[in-house]
Amino acid sequence: MKTFSVKAFGTEAPEADLQQMTIDRREVTAKDVEIDILFCGVCHSDLHTARNEWHGTVYPNVPGHEIVGRITKVGNGVTKFKVGDLAAVGCMVDSCRECEQCKHGNEQYCENGNVQTYNGHDIHLNKQTFGGYSERIVVDEDFVLHVPENLDLAATAPLLCAGVTTWSPLKHWNIGPGHKVGIVGIGGLGHMGVKLAKAMGAYVVVITTSPSKVADAKRLGADDVILSTDKEQMRANTNTLHFILDCVSAQHDVNAYLRLLKVDGTLALVGAPEHPLPIAAFSLIPARKNFAGSTIGSIKETQEMLDFCGEHAITADIELINIQDINTAYERLLKGDVKYRFVIDMTSLKG
Amino acid sequence: MKTFSVKAFGTEAPEADLQQMTIDRREVTAKDVEIDILFCGVCHSDLHTARNEWHGTVYPNVPGHEIVGRITKVGNGVTKFKVGDLAAVGCMVDSCRECEQCKHGNEQYCENGNVQTYNGHDIHLNKQTFGGYSERIVVDEDFVLHVPENLDLAATAPLLCAGVTTWSPLKHWNIGPGHKVGIVGIGGLGHMGVKLAKAMGAYVVVITTSPSKVADAKRLGADDVILSTDKEQMRANTNTLHFILDCVSAQHDVNAYLRLLKVDGTLALVGAPEHPLPIAAFSLIPARKNFAGSTIGSIKETQEMLDFCGEHAITADIELINIQDINTAYERLLKGDVKYRFVIDMTSLKG
Repeated sequence: MKTFSVKAFGTEAPEADLQQMTIDRREVTAKDVEIDILFCGVCHSDLHTARNEWHGTVYPNVPGHEIVGRITKVGNGVTKFKVGDLAAVGCMVDSCRECEQCKHGNEQYCENGNVQTYNGHDIHLNKQTFGGYSERIVVDEDFVLHVPENLDLAATAPLLCAGVTTWSPLKHWNIGPGHKVGIVGIGGLGHMGVKLAKAMGAYVVVITTSPSKVADAKRLGADDVILSTDKEQMRANTNTLHFILDCVSAQHDVNAYLRLLKVDGTLALVGAPEHPLPIAAFSLIPARKNFAGSTIGSIKETQEMLDFCGEHAITADIELINIQDINTAYERLLKGDVKYRFVIDMTSLKG
Repeated sequence: MKTFSVKAFGTEAPEADLQQMTIDRREVTAKDVEIDILFCGVCHSDLHTARNEWHGTVYPNVPGHEIVGRITKVGNGVTKFKVGDLAAVGCMVDSCRECEQCKHGNEQYCENGNVQTYNGHDIHLNKQTFGGYSERIVVDEDFVLHVPENLDLAATAPLLCAGVTTWSPLKHWNIGPGHKVGIVGIGGLGHMGVKLAKAMGAYVVVITTSPSKVADAKRLGADDVILSTDKEQMRANTNTLHFILDCVSAQHDVNAYLRLLKVDGTLALVGAPEHPLPIAAFSLIPARKNFAGSTIGSIKETQEMLDFCGEHAITADIELINIQDINTAYERLLKGDVKYRFVIDMTSLKG
């Protein structure tokens, strides 16, 4: 298979800093589009994978799955895109397309494992996939999204992971007007959860450990804020929420949040704490409550989310960086020192 | 308020054996029926409450909430029952009737707390309610059930708690033909879960730690049995079940069972282990799984379940005892030495 070389940023080992390297991309096949990457968001998963914290990282590793760019080439069978179009790629670049989940348009739950944008298995080149910290990417058009023309492109990039990861559970659990929705953990995911739930028509309650985030939560669109360290506030809000989106990746006491749910309420976890979370039977049984998990979203959901964000002028709050600053950005990410997503200006790689 | 005395069996203290005592019942008011109790099932909750294991027991305590009998008197406003009718009482004898849940017919989730059949607060006599280990009981007709005439009355008693506690989640999660349903823990609740799920049309898979229960599981109606101690069997059944009803009250590893669920599957806990259960984020997130809890059922559900059991000739597997044997029965219950429910023949109290 014909390939071409592009500049990228990646790691050669778990302890190594990210540095510039050269990787191969396939020449477009019939159904592929080639995208000149303009912006790429920095997701916590990038760091976990670069450092092999989830194990199974194949090196070299080039992270990045919040990709926005412009189409530079299309295969002769491509029908959905043309050269010059804006385009985006999220966490997946392919799936089996044959299992029950793929057939129902739930590629994120592909029973044979979808192909992740980085550190997945590239069936074309029979090696690991390389992500968006690179000049260009080649992807089957079925896994490429259209980007609304009215949005700031840099601030759109995080929608591809942080956006759809919060959108998908909000849609799956039918959140809308008349619902009181709690959002726990105001970071990359949580701040998108607030904006999306609010735009969907819900009454949004941010639950935070941090008094310093109260004002920001309201600026993001929260109707109310509960300080979870204040027992009286937590008690006063017992049995008041229909749904909670839990975006916390650190260990935390889920039982305290489950108490805020009404009968038949669901707490959906999208953060992924390392160790198991202890759940008391009596947190669930007396009011038929649900503790659920959810991951990213389907291609269809991602497109719907992007279209919705276009209509409602929703993007992420970002800090734009050059790719040469990625290692510093990872250190700041670990400290939660970003409001609320780093996005790489990819011109810095091309210079 | 006028009262009358009846014989009962109860405890005066957490450590005390149950013994015969005399309690008062109110004379029927306009909406009440008086029931001559024929049979009363022995639920593990009876033991927990008698021994104050859930705290909050008010003594003397008279347990029993799986009550079947015959109407002996009706108030002048009673419309649903007449003297001589079979009747049953389950875990509740009243609720606030005003909250959102009561208005939607979910008295079991009454926001103001329903009135439990025993150790609840009797608003008529302003003292604790007394349960079914007694000659007669007086209950508002809205919390009394009709009993199909074709069923064995003794074996019907456990339907009032064990039956509806498994029926309610199976109905709530829409179990029926085309579903593969796992039942974990074959005891008082689990054996009813097998019978009910099977009669609803599901493919029923019993999951048990005990090879000795395999034959019995099949006799109860299971289509398949998984030995949970056999790693190979557990692995072979990964991602195969739509729903799991978890009837285990002891500590257990829920993650092992969650692995058996398909995408969007739910594990509903109806047993109540004392300590929190550790749940790994990755047990839920990658396939949008749900860990839920459920308790008893509404009055409407209880009647539907009894009618369904009448149509399908379903009752519990029981061992009939005299009330004088209740303390021995409690000891055997603690060892799981009953297939699968003790039921008290109340003629033994009246002799």
